[in-house]
Order: sequence, then structure tokens, then C-alpha cells
Amino acid sequence: MQPHKTRIRVRFGDTDPYGVVYFVAYFRYFHIGIEEFLQHIGIPPETFFRNTEEKFGMPKVAADCRFFVPAFYGDTLEMHTSIKEIKEKAIVFQFHFYRPPDTKLCAEGSVTFVAIDHTWKARPLPEILLEKIKESS
Amino acid sequence: MQPHKTRIRVRFGDTDPYGVVYFVAYFRYFHIGIEEFLQHIGIPPETFFRNTEEKFGMPKVAADCRFFVPAFYGDTLEMHTSIKEIKEKAIVFQFHFYRPPDTKLCAEGSVTFVAIDHTWKARPLPEILLEKIKESS
Amino acid sequence: MQPHKTRIRVRFGDTDPYGVVYFVAYFRYFHIGIEEFLQHIGIPPETFFRNTEEKFGMPKVAADCRFFVPAFYGDTLEMHTSIKEIKEKAIVFQFHFYRPPDTKLCAEGSVTFVAIDHTWKARPLPEILLEKIKESS
Amino acid sequence: MQPHKTRIRVRFGDTDPYGVVYFVAYFRYFHIGIEEFLQHIGIPPETFFRNTEEKFGMPKVAADCRFFVPAFYGDTLEMHTSIKEIKEKAIVFQFHFYRPPDTKLCAEGSVTFVAIDHTWKARPLPEILLEKIKESS
Repeated sequence: MQPHKTRIRVRFGDTDPYGVVYFVAYFRYFHIGIEEFLQHIGIPPETFFRNTEEKFGMPKVAADCRFFVPAFYGDTLEMHTSIKEIKEKAIVFQFHFYRPPDTKLCAEGSVTFVAIDHTWKARPLPEILLEKIKESS
Repeated sequence: MQPHKTRIRVRFGDTDPYGVVYFVAYFRYFHIGIEEFLQHIGIPPETFFRNTEEKFGMPKVAADCRFFVPAFYGDTLEMHTSIKEIKEKAIVFQFHFYRPPDTKLCAEGSVTFVAIDHTWKARPLPEILLEKIKESS
Repeated sequence: MQPHKTRIRVRFGDTDPYGVVYFVAYFRYFHIGIEEFLQHIGIPPETFFRNTEEKFGMPKVAADCRFFVPAFYGDTLEMHTSIKEIKEKAIVFQFHFYRPPDTKLCAEGSVTFVAIDHTWKARPLPEILLEKIKESS
Repeated sequence: MQPHKTRIRVRFGDTDPYGVVYFVAYFRYFHIGIEEFLQHIGIPPETFFRNTEEKFGMPKVAADCRFFVPAFYGDTLEMHTSIKEIKEKAIVFQFHFYRPPDTKLCAEGSVTFVAIDHTWKARPLPEILLEKIKESS
């Protein structure tokens, strides 16, 4: 599956006081990337994170990011979102940031979700998600 | 009633790319001021905004702020939170910001809450809130 | 001039703990609206708020918003951004929010900018901005 | 050196639409922890991240967090901030989150800073920082 590309315009509130995009903003971008990715493959994001009908939730259990090239207010970044790994009970998204026309990798990170049931106990990934992911591969 | 004073330390993410506290941050500070104020007079904030037990909610219907003196990353602001007005179905909080030791007013704003029932219809302010507010005056 | 329309997707971090878009988020949306508007009429946003070359700045001096209809996580709002008023030294933007296909006004607000020189003293609106605004009317 | 303890009150905007503190908020808390830690050992935070006088900067090059126990709106978390590692050109902060009176670890993460000179080239950690850190150990 191709990574899903999202244009991220650096906004007020995304930077440190010197105009450099600060690390917290990238994690907020991650979430936008995940939502756009899900939307793209036919999973409404609001049915992914907590699905009361199917009685599952997908909390995050880990997140990380490495920063290679600084970005600035006024920049438009390109974020590539893809699935890095699917385990029995977990799914890992990964993110790569570029600052076109430059092709150097600016930042790279991942977020791991675990499937839980309504008692917050880990459970196998819901079929309804796996199907959509498989279809889109 | 004396205004409740809260120290606000300007943080990364609160400023524009030039290091000046940007307007959105003040509204976030308002919310901190309201929560600290409520806590101070014995109303746990999580029972104010939405109270499932007493079946009321307190959504915001208006907010405004005027900015007189810029504040910067590294500043510690003093926010004075008080009740500006109590109406039959609404309550208005007001906020004044200072940058000690300077005594000039830096920013000034307000937020209006309306009491609603579980059908989102306006209703008189809950007695449970009015009592706490009266006690503290 | 027609208002500039921006689609706003409600994200994690834009809501209160009950899933309702909370007031601070609208002010963040305002800023996106202003940036998109400026971009649209040919003013790069990063040359509007602080222009070191032309030696002017455009700090905000006032902002307000009224909230009529709640929006929720998962919603896509339509924000209409336009210029409400141009004064000698100030410019006022206004914002109207809708939740299509519903045509009811959900929220409405404004932000006032004042032109300052490099000593933070008010000055007439820069010609370079007025021209672009006139062209686009 | 003892970890520096900071009380973190979960606020509006820190949670997902279901009231659970969402991952981005923890990274924002990290930054508060770092600033409080620096303040505590006598380094004004605004001289750490970018020091124009001493001509160094301390950009973040990596950040990660693992989440074990969910926290909710209304919670007060205890964040323990400490230095995990000091390398020739880098310093790693670590963070542990608890939800008193519970003693279970809720979340755990780290942020790595690298020292750079005014050309953004890596350089040894500034003496001025090392001294303060040593003094406080």
C-alpha cells in the first residue's frame, strides 16, 4: 500500500518562540495523518478510536519521533502516513515528513495502537478494521 | 468577592513564531482561570461544565478578549478571575492579566456560560452552584 | 468580496472531554481562516503578521466569538472568512461557522488587527496590504 | 539527583473526545517538566533552548512515550522529571507519570536534546549548563 500523503501547513501555535516547529506539533500532525489515512481507506476515524457499537477501543500505547531537519512557520510539510506493522492485537502507524521541493527526510515517527474490549482488556484487532486495511493494500 | 489570582507561565506553544503570546493562548488561560476559581470556591470543575448527576450542563455562549500589552515567552503573567455578572440563566466570568511587577493591564476578557438541561434547553442556574458562589462572596 | 470558505475538520484536542468542540478551538480556527484568506488574495501570511522588510507588524487587539450550535468530534465545519471593516490603522476579520448540510449559523466571531511600526506604535495600514485587498474586492 | 516533581492538572484540550488524556498532551507536559526542572536547578528555560548570548541552541532530536494507564479529565497527575543521560553533545530527559494516590506508573517517556552552534552544527554541551547540572546533583 502506498503511504497516504497529507499537506501540513505550519500554523501559529505549532512553533517554539523562535519560529521553529516544536516537537509537540509533530505528534498533533501524526493524529491528522492517522485520521486522513483511515478516512482514505473507508474507516470513519470516529469509529476507530472508540467504537461503542462494536464495543472496542484503540488506545495508543506508544509514540515516538525523531527530528532531523527543522521546519519553520510558513512551511508546508508533506506527511506520509502508512501502516508499519500489524500484530495480533496491535497496529503500528508510521510517519515520514518532507519539506518539498527538498527530498530530505525531516522527521520520522510512529504510533502504536492496541485493541481493547469494553473492559479495557487487550483483544484481537477487530475484523471490521482488518478487512478495510486488507482491501486497501 | 476578591478575584482569584492564578500565575500563568508562558509556555512553548503559547506564542506566535516571534515569541509573542498569541491570542488563542489567552482563551486557554481563561479556562485555567475558571477551573482554579471553581476549585477555590468548592465546585469541582468536572461537576460544573457537565453534571450528569444533577442533569445540567454549562456550555459557553460567548467569549471575548482585548489585548493591550504584549507578553513574551519566559514571562509569568498574573491572571485575576472573577464573576462579572450572574443572570437568571447565565453566568459571566471576567479575566484581567498583568505582568508583575508592572501594574498595567495587559489583557482583559470574559466568558459567558448558560445553564442548560439534558435536552440542551436553557434553564435557571443550578442552586448547587449559586449556593457555593454566594458562600464565597 | 465573497467570503473565503475553509473546511475545518474537528480533531482530537479541539473538543472538551465530552466530545463537544470547545471555545478555544474556534479561535484557533479563526487563525487558519485568516491565513487561508490572506493566501487566497495573494498576501503570504508570514509577511502579514510581522513584516521585517517593510518594517510593520499587525498584532491582534481584540477577538470575540459567540456560539449558537454545538459541534462535535467527527464534524466537518465550513468557516466563512471575510473582512468586516477597514479603518485607517486597523482591519477587522469576521468568521461564520456552519455545519453542512445544515444552514444554521453555528458560531460567529471577529478579530481586530492594528498596524504598528517597529517601535510598536500604531500606524496607517500598509499600502502593500490595502492594494491586495482592493484588488480582490 | 532526585527527580523534580510537577503536579499536572488535566485540562480541557488535553483529552480526546471521550475524556481520556490523549497522547499529544503528554508531550506538552514533558515540556512543562523540562522547564520546571531547569528553573529548579537555576537555568532560566529561555536561556536553555536558544541562547543568543552564548551562541548555542538545544533542539530536540528525539522524543518517545509509552502509555500504561489512562488518565482522565479532572485528574491531577504527578510528573517526575529527571536527567536520564548526559553525552558529550546531548542530554536526555526522562519523565514518569503517576496518578496519586495510586503508585502505578501511568506513562513514561524521554526527550533528547543536542547542543548546536549558531550554524546548527552539533557541538559539546555548553559548560554553563553542565556546571548547573553538576551543582544540583
